[in-house]
Amino acid sequence: MKNRKTPHFSSKQGHNIAPFNLELSEARAVASIRKLGPISRTDIADITGYSRSKITSVVNQLTRAGILEEIGDGESNGGRRPRVLNFKPDFGYIVGVDMGATSLDIALANFNGQIIERQSMVIDVRDGPDMVLGLIRNLVLEKLAVRAIPAEKVLAFGIGVPGPVEFSTGLLIAPPIMPGWEAYPIRAFIKESFPCAVVIVDNDVNMMALGELHAGAGINQDHFIFVKVGTGIGCGIVCKGEIHRGSNGCAGDIGHVCADQKGPICHCGNIGCLEAIAAGPPIAARAMEAARKNQSAILAKYMEMQGNKLTALDVGRAASQGDPVANEIIRDSGRIIGEVLAGLVNFFNPSLILIGGGVSNIGHQFLASIRRGVLHRSLPLSTRHLRIDTSPMGADAGIIGAITLAMEHVFVAVNNGEPS
Amino acid sequence: MKNRKTPHFSSKQGHNIAPFNLELSEARAVASIRKLGPISRTDIADITGYSRSKITSVVNQLTRAGILEEIGDGESNGGRRPRVLNFKPDFGYIVGVDMGATSLDIALANFNGQIIERQSMVIDVRDGPDMVLGLIRNLVLEKLAVRAIPAEKVLAFGIGVPGPVEFSTGLLIAPPIMPGWEAYPIRAFIKESFPCAVVIVDNDVNMMALGELHAGAGINQDHFIFVKVGTGIGCGIVCKGEIHRGSNGCAGDIGHVCADQKGPICHCGNIGCLEAIAAGPPIAARAMEAARKNQSAILAKYMEMQGNKLTALDVGRAASQGDPVANEIIRDSGRIIGEVLAGLVNFFNPSLILIGGGVSNIGHQFLASIRRGVLHRSLPLSTRHLRIDTSPMGADAGIIGAITLAMEHVFVAVNNGEPS
Repeated sequence: MKNRKTPHFSSKQGHNIAPFNLELSEARAVASIRKLGPISRTDIADITGYSRSKITSVVNQLTRAGILEEIGDGESNGGRRPRVLNFKPDFGYIVGVDMGATSLDIALANFNGQIIERQSMVIDVRDGPDMVLGLIRNLVLEKLAVRAIPAEKVLAFGIGVPGPVEFSTGLLIAPPIMPGWEAYPIRAFIKESFPCAVVIVDNDVNMMALGELHAGAGINQDHFIFVKVGTGIGCGIVCKGEIHRGSNGCAGDIGHVCADQKGPICHCGNIGCLEAIAAGPPIAARAMEAARKNQSAILAKYMEMQGNKLTALDVGRAASQGDPVANEIIRDSGRIIGEVLAGLVNFFNPSLILIGGGVSNIGHQFLASIRRGVLHRSLPLSTRHLRIDTSPMGADAGIIGAITLAMEHVFVAVNNGEPS
Repeated sequence: MKNRKTPHFSSKQGHNIAPFNLELSEARAVASIRKLGPISRTDIADITGYSRSKITSVVNQLTRAGILEEIGDGESNGGRRPRVLNFKPDFGYIVGVDMGATSLDIALANFNGQIIERQSMVIDVRDGPDMVLGLIRNLVLEKLAVRAIPAEKVLAFGIGVPGPVEFSTGLLIAPPIMPGWEAYPIRAFIKESFPCAVVIVDNDVNMMALGELHAGAGINQDHFIFVKVGTGIGCGIVCKGEIHRGSNGCAGDIGHVCADQKGPICHCGNIGCLEAIAAGPPIAARAMEAARKNQSAILAKYMEMQGNKLTALDVGRAASQGDPVANEIIRDSGRIIGEVLAGLVNFFNPSLILIGGGVSNIGHQFLASIRRGVLHRSLPLSTRHLRIDTSPMGADAGIIGAITLAMEHVFVAVNNGEPS
């Protein structure tokens, strides 16, 4: 047995500051409960490969530190019923934030991952980081005050943002729809009010993919893609049960894949980018053109009602009323997205593609056309077991993903020594 | 301490049949030496997270079984110099095979992974599995006989084949250039003559990517793509330091990604597939057309010399002599490959793309055009640290990959219980 220092999470003076160092054996025990929920010491030993006696000592240590607790008896295999372990709910709290261009979702979860407070509201991300992050801070502090939880009990803060994030630093890199956010120190801002929290910032689509992986259609799916279709188009990639961020942390940025060599010029300067043809704004633009040319009475009526403007959702409403022009616009968009996804299916061979984001609810023609586009251009072997569906979690995916990701960073295995 | 059965690799009667079961702790010790080369017990304990005493017992067990041996003293940190452990070279032997459409490379390696015999020859894979596999068997048996190694000492056999493989079964699925090989029981054929070997069959490009990962430009690259350009176009994907095979084992099949919606019809039935435009045969076809139209004297001369035929390598030779038509054909092919790779770069965000296969040596314009194509259509963040190069290992990549992959399957951790 080697001597071990008392880990600093068992300190009694002042508050504990995440992330906490764990020995590799402790980290493996924690990860097994995080993954499988409440389990017995024997289960932990089986999963981690450590001896029963080693796990008993690891669990004792984690229980003494207030991280784990026994929560009752599990299933018996004939003998005495084993005691089942879980996280102690009030060891600390986790905040999950899903920030959209025009929406904000916030949730507060206990250390078991159960959401105990939740709120949604309309915002404008272009108001800039001081205003938006200030709002988030105030909302969380209010919720904590109501429950008499000190801010120092928040151990992790996960924030999904609608722009490209350099994951290692938590900084936004040239976000196209977030003026003023480039390289803004989001982590430092949050840590000012929540000094004990580890703060994790990631792209919103990665958070959504994580949410589906942890609690939605992605459970037990090793390789899947979550595609968000909204103002832009991006995807979160799950590979071997983990988010794949790539070598610079910007994997999944499929909005600027070439979908048509003869297509329109994109705001990025290239020709025929996927999101310049098939995302919400081009769908709306095509519908407004049709309305102006009197090709669709329904679209023209909506446009008049809404001050000479249409959104992609208006096109969906028109399609649901049987408007052929609206249906054609939606079918074209879905087909083009599907054809680009076909190339990614051949390359990555996922078992599941989930379609989410605001435009994903534009009507059943949209999903059907994506499916046809994928099947048309993918290889038979790669689509043999491929499922393509709309995201079942909807708006919850991002927030649950943010909580899940933040939780994973509360503890650090000292053998890996990964700084956060 | 829990009781453990004597593992069957320590049996003294008869021969040992791979794969061998190892406890998780043993498997982790073996993997750490496989990854880092000869290291001390202290290093193994640090890497695996087990106590020094646990590792001492694990190493004793593996040494008694003849798997490991002490090979001398390592670096001292002030005290006694630690004994360094490595695999015992004659514990068993590994065969690596790289099968191409028209070429065969075979190597025999000892248990340390050192190649002790190697042979290359011209074959025709269309002669069918009985003939080609029979040849492989005879060649290996000859090499073993010369060294007085019994066939039962071959513990693993890795075979790379030029077609889509269902990795879990080792069967070829609808291989376009391998008539007669569909679902042929390659493993059973090999096991008849090498009854103690675990037999691993994989796509040749995956093997090449593995070879580069283990011993070439891919060392320490977490995320990279090996693109083989030959008769067809395919790629091997390394994700988090491991081959990514996808949910059906067919990831990397990029030859049929749409490169031009107005392009030629591919043998797969779709329009504008990458390999129908940019692989070896369309390069040769375009050159032959130019020769017939008298657009290039050099190409016309080569064509006459070679019985009215040209290959992609002839186009490379003409280009190296300054023929503008040949150079244009090569540039177009590279550009189109680069533009398709750009989409994959945006999606996967690799740090490295290696170009291999017969056509990769067609001239420096080819690589330059691929690079331009990628940079033209990729996002700045995803190409910030991206390197694009021709494979430095050349023909060795496939064979070293086959040996590496086969070795990884000699032992199975019983906690994972993965059948092979």
